Amino acid sequence: MPRRKLDLESVLPELEKRNAKKIGIQLPDGLKYKSEQIAEFFESKGYEVIISGSHCYGACDLDLELLKEVDVLLHLAHTPIFELERVIYVPYYVDYDVEDFEDIEIEERSIALIASAQYAWKLPEVKSVLEKRGYEVELKRGSNRVKMLGQVLGCNYTVLRNSKAEAVLFVGDGLFHPIGAKIYTKKKVYRFCPLDKEFEEVKVDDFLKRRYLSISKAMAAERGAIIVSKKIGQKRLSLALDLKRKAKERSKEVELIYLDDISPQVLENFLYGYFVNTACPRISYDDIELYSVPILTPQEFEMLLGLRSWEDYEVDEIL
Amino acid sequence: MPRRKLDLESVLPELEKRNAKKIGIQLPDGLKYKSEQIAEFFESKGYEVIISGSHCYGACDLDLELLKEVDVLLHLAHTPIFELERVIYVPYYVDYDVEDFEDIEIEERSIALIASAQYAWKLPEVKSVLEKRGYEVELKRGSNRVKMLGQVLGCNYTVLRNSKAEAVLFVGDGLFHPIGAKIYTKKKVYRFCPLDKEFEEVKVDDFLKRRYLSISKAMAAERGAIIVSKKIGQKRLSLALDLKRKAKERSKEVELIYLDDISPQVLENFLYGYFVNTACPRISYDDIELYSVPILTPQEFEMLLGLRSWEDYEVDEIL
Repeated sequence: MPRRKLDLESVLPELEKRNAKKIGIQLPDGLKYKSEQIAEFFESKGYEVIISGSHCYGACDLDLELLKEVDVLLHLAHTPIFELERVIYVPYYVDYDVEDFEDIEIEERSIALIASAQYAWKLPEVKSVLEKRGYEVELKRGSNRVKMLGQVLGCNYTVLRNSKAEAVLFVGDGLFHPIGAKIYTKKKVYRFCPLDKEFEEVKVDDFLKRRYLSISKAMAAERGAIIVSKKIGQKRLSLALDLKRKAKERSKEVELIYLDDISPQVLENFLYGYFVNTACPRISYDDIELYSVPILTPQEFEMLLGLRSWEDYEVDEIL
Repeated sequence: MPRRKLDLESVLPELEKRNAKKIGIQLPDGLKYKSEQIAEFFESKGYEVIISGSHCYGACDLDLELLKEVDVLLHLAHTPIFELERVIYVPYYVDYDVEDFEDIEIEERSIALIASAQYAWKLPEVKSVLEKRGYEVELKRGSNRVKMLGQVLGCNYTVLRNSKAEAVLFVGDGLFHPIGAKIYTKKKVYRFCPLDKEFEEVKVDDFLKRRYLSISKAMAAERGAIIVSKKIGQKRLSLALDLKRKAKERSKEVELIYLDDISPQVLENFLYGYFVNTACPRISYDDIELYSVPILTPQEFEMLLGLRSWEDYEVDEIL
């Protein structure tokens, strides 16, 4: 059974070093149920605590408003994107048995190894296991946005850039990251989930079919808008302005909409027939059923404008 | 038929005076469907436009993030709370026939006249009509948060402070403001809606019964949290800290939660049995059916703590 590791004790010397009295705590939604227990831990040590109640989707989504009110912000369960003096990133790891990789059968002999943040810390061990079995294993460092060897984000697959491996093995839960990896590399991608021990080859045909339908639907719409995020690590205003300019050159008018959290509830107030999302790519890819209108990625909007062919479909990345 | 007035032409000289090139547009959710048309108007005059997509609940909720990206922010349909050099408030009035007030029968002879922002601009005319009919009419100025004579907000009834009138007449739609006025004054409150010409005396028994049920439910809960708003005009951190301190003195532990938009979706991630809301009072009062746990006002939390009696029930105000 995979065990979860959250080491709060190790934060205490860091707080002391920074002479902190007031601390903020920011957690992803899935961990917010622990907020009371975490707050109590620090309050029992004499700290004043304020919990960030807003949704939190990653280290791209630092609560800078809360940071103004506290001495130190503890950001839990994401690897750093922005290194700020008063922000301490507290990792939250899933522990799992690397022996499981002794039974995995991959026909290709050279593999690029990737994982999401909670699983990436054990990839060097997984690499050893696979190498002992005769596989050639690639475990690389990506851009500055991903801190661990082999780590991918929903918006970053740079650890796979120029990969020479024949296939990719993703370690983690969910299908989103391995789908992104397959579109990124156009290679065979396998997925192993240490939680349910499921191993499978990842297919993207259905995913791409849905994306194509979204683009067609947007093409038929009269008017769209480009979403720009307020979040520190999702804000791509110059990309949005560039897309607006390109659209205008093709006589297509689009408005710019500035948003923090993007949800069906905020977008339904507008009458636009589609949105182009320059914020977190997962909003376009993952939440497609929630929205009544298409949410395109920047690359998909280029396709709508006739500036990119279907063969050049690329996954949206923030580097 | 009431007509709505939105005067965009009058904004143009103001923009020129400020030498603006990029403008932001912020509208309440109910007007966002007009954003495209408004953006087009300003774009046709050569301005670059970014629309605020976030929910907008009042002038308490200025989009300061958008203000960083533009020269001038146009904030529509609310009267100013914060006078900032680069924010232009664009009024949005509902026009209505003051002759309707010739038929309204109020038994009390002295009346305090109040209205919400979109209706308040015609209160001086309404006053004349009523005075001609022999009523004594009070139309007063409130605190700095309300700019027009007789204007009330969901969080501000200061135009009724020390009122000597026997009864109150509210002009506008919805029941929220007149209910607040009745709790505030403990006098008879009438409501006239110029849209549907409905005239009625406002009752608060059901409202107060629901509030009492919320407080009882919260009393039975083990643990609660106090919500502090990030919004410029809703942020009451020192009030929240004060409530936390009072609770602690009575051996009741509550955490502080910092939030921008408050919704069932963000709160459902937490396990607290109740919340104390120091943000917009309407969240506690209006949205009660949306939340699975009680959302108390600061005054109601004082009742929970045994610091205030039921007879001293007061409507929550931000002054």
